[in-house]
Amino acid sequence: MDISDTSTLVSADALEARLREIGAERYHHHHRFHKLLHGGELTRGQIQAWALNRYYYQCSIPVKDAHVLAKFRDREVRREWIHRITDHDGEPGGEGGIDRWLRLTDFLGLDRDYVESTEGILPATRFAVDAYVNFVRDRSPLEAVASSLTELFAPTIHEQRIAGFLANYDFFTDEMLAYFRKRLTQAPRDANFALRFVRENAGTEPKREAVCRALLFKTDVLWVQLDALEHAYIEGHVPPGAFTPDNVQ
Amino acid sequence: MDISDTSTLVSADALEARLREIGAERYHHHHRFHKLLHGGELTRGQIQAWALNRYYYQCSIPVKDAHVLAKFRDREVRREWIHRITDHDGEPGGEGGIDRWLRLTDFLGLDRDYVESTEGILPATRFAVDAYVNFVRDRSPLEAVASSLTELFAPTIHEQRIAGFLANYDFFTDEMLAYFRKRLTQAPRDANFALRFVRENAGTEPKREAVCRALLFKTDVLWVQLDALEHAYIEGHVPPGAFTPDNVQ
Repeated sequence: MDISDTSTLVSADALEARLREIGAERYHHHHRFHKLLHGGELTRGQIQAWALNRYYYQCSIPVKDAHVLAKFRDREVRREWIHRITDHDGEPGGEGGIDRWLRLTDFLGLDRDYVESTEGILPATRFAVDAYVNFVRDRSPLEAVASSLTELFAPTIHEQRIAGFLANYDFFTDEMLAYFRKRLTQAPRDANFALRFVRENAGTEPKREAVCRALLFKTDVLWVQLDALEHAYIEGHVPPGAFTPDNVQ
Repeated sequence: MDISDTSTLVSADALEARLREIGAERYHHHHRFHKLLHGGELTRGQIQAWALNRYYYQCSIPVKDAHVLAKFRDREVRREWIHRITDHDGEPGGEGGIDRWLRLTDFLGLDRDYVESTEGILPATRFAVDAYVNFVRDRSPLEAVASSLTELFAPTIHEQRIAGFLANYDFFTDEMLAYFRKRLTQAPRDANFALRFVRENAGTEPKREAVCRALLFKTDVLWVQLDALEHAYIEGHVPPGAFTPDNVQ
């Protein structure tokens, strides 16, 4: 099947089936970097590079979701969506997903100021994540919601990650994995709302096609980040100015 | 020297010296992909991938320059800058840089509709080039002009390319290289104007620092594109959905 063939998107069920096919074929659980990461094949320095770069994605998500909120005049959608921002930012004085990610980078031995500065990330990470934020800002409400649908496929990868980290690396502890455990319940709730939304609001074939293209775009955003990590830290082509682990080997 | 150390940008001369250092250290003439490309080490399929991806950069330049024009209320700057758009777009009925690039992709055996659709480019190419266009749209007029300063370093690479292509590949002819020959005279004229502009308009250290950061950003935009080509077409990790040459080997 050609995943970009959208000629058969005749109904909401056909749309959902295609979205699930796109996930099965294109989601980054297939990427070689994740197989190495979860399989215990990486050094601590390579995992530092992954966590450091991924921080830029994490800290951009609430900005992305603020753009989603700003697209909706419909208060009901905003009321459903706003918890995504607090999930990551936390309540005042409380802890959110970004704090949990920073605990992970702390445990991995990265300086917190350095992580938060995002100075050492790969330019490719910045360009890909910014592309995602801009896509959500610039496209239709339907496409903005649809681009979040990778959450449908996240629980499996989080489960693999938790199990793989604990089984295959002696420096991972349960405490370091709080971010991923939390996402096991957050992601499905969010994904189900977004899936219902696109089923109900993509009422024509061109709209269903736009939904599929938004999800394909998002899988590219995720894939590019792993390609860049693999190129820099597995194949050893760290671009000028980017983070260099002390202990790659 | 730390290229990002901007503590000594006390004058226009110091700024120009630093800009030239950034070029000497960070411009993509150092990239391994260019060494392979110019040295005759690539297959025709790998060169197709390069020309196909680079087309997205080429066709985005006039849009980028339209954003520059739109930033200036000063008519004199617009009068100086506008020829950059016609250099690439051509006059009505005439030929511009984009046509010359398409002649190159024609000669390389790529379908013109496919090239112009940009469907087969690497997502990393799209994200990097879009980041450049957005940078120019969203930043100050000074930073927008400064990000064009890679043109200062372009003539050397174009000369190496023309000589390398003709010497090292039997399928390159002089006619295919019209784009690069033309840039040998266009780029220095443009770069000299932009250099004079930043020398005269970056009157404080923070402004001179912003100029340097804009040029560093732009070198990242160029570097990322070659990293992505190397990863996909030299190391063989073509991401899902991207162009696959018939004849990589």
